[in-house]
Amino acid sequence: MQTWRLLCATLGVLAAGSLHAEPADTLAPPADYRHWFHVNTMIVDKASPLFESIGGMHNVYTDAVGEAALKKGGPFPDKTMFVTDLHGFTVQEGSYVEGPRKAIAVMLKDAKKYESTGGWGFQLFEGGDPNKPLVADAAKQCFACHEPKKDHDYVFSTYIP
Amino acid sequence: MQTWRLLCATLGVLAAGSLHAEPADTLAPPADYRHWFHVNTMIVDKASPLFESIGGMHNVYTDAVGEAALKKGGPFPDKTMFVTDLHGFTVQEGSYVEGPRKAIAVMLKDAKKYESTGGWGFQLFEGGDPNKPLVADAAKQCFACHEPKKDHDYVFSTYIP
Repeated sequence: MQTWRLLCATLGVLAAGSLHAEPADTLAPPADYRHWFHVNTMIVDKASPLFESIGGMHNVYTDAVGEAALKKGGPFPDKTMFVTDLHGFTVQEGSYVEGPRKAIAVMLKDAKKYESTGGWGFQLFEGGDPNKPLVADAAKQCFACHEPKKDHDYVFSTYIP
Repeated sequence: MQTWRLLCATLGVLAAGSLHAEPADTLAPPADYRHWFHVNTMIVDKASPLFESIGGMHNVYTDAVGEAALKKGGPFPDKTMFVTDLHGFTVQEGSYVEGPRKAIAVMLKDAKKYESTGGWGFQLFEGGDPNKPLVADAAKQCFACHEPKKDHDYVFSTYIP
């Protein structure tokens, strides 16, 4: 069974609230990701040690480049992008129901530009707002948790047919 | 807060196992739905009274016709299709992780053809297999639960920006 977490386990930036980072580069939430390939969904519930930092419903998407590579088990070529659309949720009569957006997380592959973080650029946008990036130190806040997934090119998500 | 259930609460056909219905018409799981608009996700967990019949992770998609209508709050024109890709899930350290496919549910709008069921054709395919339709009586197994949603053209899902 897959055990993926697209976002960094020790990120904690959502909990940090309104402390916005200066954008490190041109990373931004892409406009059309809800028409991209829907990779999978995960819910980080209250019982999880990750709830404080990344609790919510994680809807994960990837672009055409990423989709093809994902189906082959990686590695991921430049221009691969993963988007996690992070939403709140409510529990209604035993069902977990999607709520409003909390944030959008982005991973963009550019082997040269992001050499120091496994070839991936990372950013997290509060409420999905391109003007509210939350990650100031991707190496510490994101890549540290992705590093153990080196055998899958630092990506937690796997292909579910 | 939305309270939707795309599948019929009293369906029970997944629990019925290998009892396959004769296909009532040309309804089939569409090939490309994972590139359609991802509407939302819901998890029907073990605590739900619906778990026996439709337990699992419901990933809901709609085609371009449906997407436009959904954003306006309905009604839905002919050729609107909704797909629920129903997967199992596991709970790992407080996180709900998507598992393999259990079934694909389809709703297709054709006001004339499906007049007796609100203009919608319904079908559920075991494992997503087009040769394993499970619904023999859409009026009873599906439409009966959708009927109270008449003010949203019998669709439970609402648009989450």
